[in-house]
Amino acid sequence: MVRPVALLVAYDGTGFAGWQVQPGRATVQGTIQAALDRVHGVPPGTVSIVGSGRTDSGVHAVGQVASYTPPTRREPGILVLGLARILPEAIRVLDAWEAEPGFHACRSATGKVYRYRIVNRPNALPFELPWAWHVWPRLDVDAMRAAAAALVGTHDFAAFANAGGQSETTVRTVRRLVVAASPDAVVEVEVEADGFLYRMVRNITGFLVQVGRGRRPPAAAARVLASGRRAEAGMTAPPRGLCLVRALYDARTARTSDRPSARVSPR
Amino acid sequence: MVRPVALLVAYDGTGFAGWQVQPGRATVQGTIQAALDRVHGVPPGTVSIVGSGRTDSGVHAVGQVASYTPPTRREPGILVLGLARILPEAIRVLDAWEAEPGFHACRSATGKVYRYRIVNRPNALPFELPWAWHVWPRLDVDAMRAAAAALVGTHDFAAFANAGGQSETTVRTVRRLVVAASPDAVVEVEVEADGFLYRMVRNITGFLVQVGRGRRPPAAAARVLASGRRAEAGMTAPPRGLCLVRALYDARTARTSDRPSARVSPR
Repeated sequence: MVRPVALLVAYDGTGFAGWQVQPGRATVQGTIQAALDRVHGVPPGTVSIVGSGRTDSGVHAVGQVASYTPPTRREPGILVLGLARILPEAIRVLDAWEAEPGFHACRSATGKVYRYRIVNRPNALPFELPWAWHVWPRLDVDAMRAAAAALVGTHDFAAFANAGGQSETTVRTVRRLVVAASPDAVVEVEVEADGFLYRMVRNITGFLVQVGRGRRPPAAAARVLASGRRAEAGMTAPPRGLCLVRALYDARTARTSDRPSARVSPR
Repeated sequence: MVRPVALLVAYDGTGFAGWQVQPGRATVQGTIQAALDRVHGVPPGTVSIVGSGRTDSGVHAVGQVASYTPPTRREPGILVLGLARILPEAIRVLDAWEAEPGFHACRSATGKVYRYRIVNRPNALPFELPWAWHVWPRLDVDAMRAAAAALVGTHDFAAFANAGGQSETTVRTVRRLVVAASPDAVVEVEVEADGFLYRMVRNITGFLVQVGRGRRPPAAAARVLASGRRAEAGMTAPPRGLCLVRALYDARTARTSDRPSARVSPR
């Protein structure tokens, strides 16, 4: 029986219309599939991969996991080298391995971790702007943390979901929601959940920034959740600050993406 | 008497044909000059700025300093805001101030600091590649440090200078040459000198990488210097890893560029 192959993928989402294949547009999934067709020496359109989740247009990843059924046998190290040569610099396959039979990057995932970067200084550097939201004046990080605390746990996150998702339920479990500020004034919102609704992290971040700006009190978080109404949460943070950091799996079903190469944080 | 205005500038040099104005090409100097014409409300081609040094095509900066004679009076804070709106994201003016009479960003500079970034892992992230040189296998950083030590001091650096520079002498004083390795396998070569010859930092880095790869012994550094021959130093490191970090001035002639905003390191 052919084992599925898993890939650990990092990408700069700036120039892509998101992860998922769309006719006539450059997407991360489509670009990787075309490269895999070449590495496996099969006709274009043969290989089909699935990601741990779909990232939106302009959203980045350092720990996306994808899986597929290989049409021909290729040693994982050879795959990585071959893909490095074919793929554009904006997409890097950091690792490849043979997963357990039945492994499916999306269905097998037990959760995912996203990180949202905010540069909170009068001026952001050109090197930061492609992967961060530049926000000024100074944010009240303590207020943001207080609001974030109310969102941890199992809730109906309908107020933080845009229309267009494909889920049957809007209930999700946020296991961790950390607002961290670094000495160089980068504020990071890191969210781990069992699953994410459409634009959920960007909507949570947009809400937290309103709190950090003093336009909403931290106590509004619980009220917004309870309302279930998207309009209550307010603004959506722009895609460029968002990065899929890690996809989580049981040790049994797959080697996890929590590997040394995946631990390198985005710059 | 009109005081010169000084600007602290950061840029992503990827899309520019270097600092210096060239007909028909996008340059950093030309782009800033055109923006200053607009901010000052003067006809195109009026404002002319000078930088602390000319950076090559594809080279970046976080601490370039430029100066010019303002054609109209503008409060520095207004200048910064106006330029932020007009300039592309790849160029950010972090600060502006009125300098002492006679200040000239190039002639008044007492030195400059450059940093060269090397990602020394099997795989570099898309977020690192625009501002780093990806080198693998692992470099012998201790050997690189031993070679670097021989280059510190006042020497004739002709062997590390490409033809095309405009200096009368190839003698320079390297005050500091540090090879630093971070836990995430980024090796940085930081060089402070009173002045730099054409491609000097990229040639020094190219040589040090050959030493780090074990292709040249550290003791070759002194021999290369003594030879005065460019061919002896070997390869030139690619421009994308190089960044002008800081321009140095006497406290008397100008406020220095060593300001809080300049201390933010490039990502």
